[in-house]
Amino acid sequence: MKLEMKERNLIRGKLKFIPLGGNGQVTKNMFVYEYENDIIIVDCGMGFPDETMFGIDMVIPDISYLRDKKQKIRGVLITHGHEDHIGALPYILPELSVPVYATKLTAGLINVKLKEHNLQQMMKVNVIEPGQRIQLGSFQAEAFRVSHSIPDAVGYALSTPLGTTVHTGDYKFDMTPVDEKPTDTAKLAELGRRGVMALMSDSLRSEKLGFTLSESMIEPKFEEAMEEATGRVIITTFSSNISRVKQAIGASMRFGRKVALVGRSMESNLIVARELGYIKFPNDILVRIENIEKQPPSKLTLIVAGSQAQSGSALTRIANGAHKFVSIHPGDLVIFSADPIPGHEDPVHEVVDNLTRLGARVIYSDITDEFHVSGHGAQAELMLMLNLTKPRYLVPISGMYRQMKRFADLATNAGVDSKNIFILEEGNVLEFTKDGAKLDGEVETSNVMVDGLGVGDVGDVVLRDRRVLAEEGVVVVIVTIKKSTGEVVGEPDIVSRGFVYMKEAEPLISEVKELVKKSVPAGKVSNWHFVREKIIDSLEKFLYQKTQRRPMVLTVVVEV
Amino acid sequence: MKLEMKERNLIRGKLKFIPLGGNGQVTKNMFVYEYENDIIIVDCGMGFPDETMFGIDMVIPDISYLRDKKQKIRGVLITHGHEDHIGALPYILPELSVPVYATKLTAGLINVKLKEHNLQQMMKVNVIEPGQRIQLGSFQAEAFRVSHSIPDAVGYALSTPLGTTVHTGDYKFDMTPVDEKPTDTAKLAELGRRGVMALMSDSLRSEKLGFTLSESMIEPKFEEAMEEATGRVIITTFSSNISRVKQAIGASMRFGRKVALVGRSMESNLIVARELGYIKFPNDILVRIENIEKQPPSKLTLIVAGSQAQSGSALTRIANGAHKFVSIHPGDLVIFSADPIPGHEDPVHEVVDNLTRLGARVIYSDITDEFHVSGHGAQAELMLMLNLTKPRYLVPISGMYRQMKRFADLATNAGVDSKNIFILEEGNVLEFTKDGAKLDGEVETSNVMVDGLGVGDVGDVVLRDRRVLAEEGVVVVIVTIKKSTGEVVGEPDIVSRGFVYMKEAEPLISEVKELVKKSVPAGKVSNWHFVREKIIDSLEKFLYQKTQRRPMVLTVVVEV
Repeated sequence: MKLEMKERNLIRGKLKFIPLGGNGQVTKNMFVYEYENDIIIVDCGMGFPDETMFGIDMVIPDISYLRDKKQKIRGVLITHGHEDHIGALPYILPELSVPVYATKLTAGLINVKLKEHNLQQMMKVNVIEPGQRIQLGSFQAEAFRVSHSIPDAVGYALSTPLGTTVHTGDYKFDMTPVDEKPTDTAKLAELGRRGVMALMSDSLRSEKLGFTLSESMIEPKFEEAMEEATGRVIITTFSSNISRVKQAIGASMRFGRKVALVGRSMESNLIVARELGYIKFPNDILVRIENIEKQPPSKLTLIVAGSQAQSGSALTRIANGAHKFVSIHPGDLVIFSADPIPGHEDPVHEVVDNLTRLGARVIYSDITDEFHVSGHGAQAELMLMLNLTKPRYLVPISGMYRQMKRFADLATNAGVDSKNIFILEEGNVLEFTKDGAKLDGEVETSNVMVDGLGVGDVGDVVLRDRRVLAEEGVVVVIVTIKKSTGEVVGEPDIVSRGFVYMKEAEPLISEVKELVKKSVPAGKVSNWHFVREKIIDSLEKFLYQKTQRRPMVLTVVVEV
Repeated sequence: MKLEMKERNLIRGKLKFIPLGGNGQVTKNMFVYEYENDIIIVDCGMGFPDETMFGIDMVIPDISYLRDKKQKIRGVLITHGHEDHIGALPYILPELSVPVYATKLTAGLINVKLKEHNLQQMMKVNVIEPGQRIQLGSFQAEAFRVSHSIPDAVGYALSTPLGTTVHTGDYKFDMTPVDEKPTDTAKLAELGRRGVMALMSDSLRSEKLGFTLSESMIEPKFEEAMEEATGRVIITTFSSNISRVKQAIGASMRFGRKVALVGRSMESNLIVARELGYIKFPNDILVRIENIEKQPPSKLTLIVAGSQAQSGSALTRIANGAHKFVSIHPGDLVIFSADPIPGHEDPVHEVVDNLTRLGARVIYSDITDEFHVSGHGAQAELMLMLNLTKPRYLVPISGMYRQMKRFADLATNAGVDSKNIFILEEGNVLEFTKDGAKLDGEVETSNVMVDGLGVGDVGDVVLRDRRVLAEEGVVVVIVTIKKSTGEVVGEPDIVSRGFVYMKEAEPLISEVKELVKKSVPAGKVSNWHFVREKIIDSLEKFLYQKTQRRPMVLTVVVEV
């Protein structure tokens, strides 16, 4: 014992923990653990653009901090197969080229993604089992099972000479999960008994009292609905929620309903899950989408992608009457087996309205909460995690600031010393030594935006321009000037888009032309920049006064 | 009795009911009642732009249908002083120039609005009392009290020779409202006894079970919070919710807290309400905002506008640390006494996060529902309204389609013949005759958008352009061509905004210039339009292939 103390005192190593995403935004999860010459990364997810990021497809973590440390990175550990934990891999993995570790289903979903980006030859995902220990430099990593809204989710216990850190990933304590693999409380208790230095825990649902309900409560509800329904039952949910889809198929089989899968993501996820043995059903239960109209309505279930009313998704197209194979019939029952995620409330409601207009009966979260449960643990579960692992330090992760703070307050009330709780924002560096833990500055991060083929080429300047263009449109002025004399040749050309309807704005345009001509200084032009600025300046003032709008004014001076 | 029957049979008149807004969108309430040569209008509200209406300030009802019928319009009856019921008056009243009728507080709030638009000389609002009968052509209108989230709200009983229509406006059955003026159940029962032909009823909360809680349950909650709080209490709510503000002031007085009002709308609404006697408090309870730092924190309440996190609102500026007079101190308690309205969830959450970061404890709807009640009646109240008025026909109004349908289903379950229930979308015409009621076509309506000083000058073309500009930006190509020979003079000019960061896109721009030069057909130009189209076509293809983006390409050909 004394020796151990002595050994411990000799440890000079520092462990750094840096969220490159996840904290303060929920999505875009990526966490760096750095111990001396070794770095491991947990998760590599995509984020969603916020409402100011016009035209952006997705946001990925900023790995600037890692660029000069590539040779130190020993691996990327993935907790589960949701987009916000794996979605940035195709963008980041080619640059880092380090091994990836994931459980079987997660690896299967990653491989689909790598294939889409033609990267499957270059990268290999190592399949791991919970309980298996992997040595990654001075880190020893061991995955432990957690239940979540996708099968095969894990957290990681990460041991260094300084102590053990428990990184939970997303979790709930579902005691009766559909895949019969609950969160491994025994392992967590064992870790707690051996001593946990720090707990990095999911905090998303820290605002909710009690325990999140079990996923398995859904299937009886599907059965009740199918028993009552005289027409088709149309269920929409997240296509990654394989347990939910499994329950929908199970209930359908019990009521003699065939099942059609609608939507590319729904089909491709089911193929992977079935190939890997996570969902089993006889072939003849499935109906091809082309053949659904031949099936009696009371003998058919449709499982449809697009529960968030994403534009272009199967459900949105159905609601708009624009799906090639599926149209709504009076008597159809549509069940939203998913809550709208923040920011999607309006489009989801619009889809509900449109489905109702088409004659469907629609069940959604404003009417009942019986058809959806969350994949994240509520307050009592966060407290259970604390109680099992008994950490010295607590770091809430993967929540908005208010949710991380809420978890911190709950933990303080439960007796954790508030000095030992750290709320980290993206890029904050938390440093552990044998003497304690402290915030130690931050690494710079910015939003790396993906737009079409471009990764990171759209920055703040471009976004600011898009915002102005979106709000007020653009006015382009082309004025031709004789180089030798500085006089304006002919009429200026005025082109505008998104400002006013030009065909009805003739008088305004005439005034603009006159103003442009007057704004050109007399005499030979020596400074073209000055001429442009002068035109822009007078035009902006004039247009604002006339319309109280501030379109972007672009001026091109052509010299001849 | 026999005579009455005979008289009734002689009635050849038709009553038309046309929602020009409100139905299918909740806001932008405006309803037309037309009986032969007389038209009356109920409400004239503004709507909010949806997420596709870039740069639009507000949407107002389309009154095209009324333009050739102005001489028939006998008046505009206003139900209450919320923006979505009065906000379009300054835009529509000058064109219609008809008398407006409203209760005292509502008239006061309309006058503030007219003053802002310099219309107070031209228009006069007639103040009416509940119970007073007004003859408007062949319509007899009588206002009856309803409780809502603003004092002095009314509905109207509208009688024509065909029968009586009850137009509820927004309502709940609050039996203990703060202004002590509950919905007039006796009057409604009397109308029901005399015979109601049609009930046009608010349907917004038809998804919610039971009764909406009484507004007066809030004050004790404020008191509990103030008793417990050791620092400042900061309450944010809708500035039109005068009863809520009254309760906040009342609770503050009881705990010896002075009150500061923060935000222009909060101050101006309180001034009107106080002048007209709807809220009473001694002068010395108020603290000027410049002096709040001199007040001990435990003796101060701030009542702040911006509960929906509107950009530029007082609360948003406080949360961003950008308010001139108010900054958050650790120990401040912020209470959201308002739920986020649909579409505002994200900004509200961002404000909660920022207030939490600044050290405030924040209470909001995800944590507790104790600090807000709705102003709209839930299912049991809609059923009570039906039960009191016993209408032959039911028309749900002022709800989204799903909510109007839900009310219709509830009414059907309660025994109303579903053939006598009509769900109307904007512009639908419902026609009543002595023989019955039927849908009779529709009048054309479109979104009339207000953008700066322009009303209706931004239409679908401009909006479509703004959407493209927002998503992908703009590329402008200017190519100078010698008229006589058709050859390109010099290098084409390329200007772009919101597409890629130009300074880092030199190689792309060079390629674009080459492509433009190659796209100009050889020889003397006879068709400039053709040249432009050819450049745009080849450029769009090239840019999409290179970037998978589709910026708007504008081409100007300058001929010299």
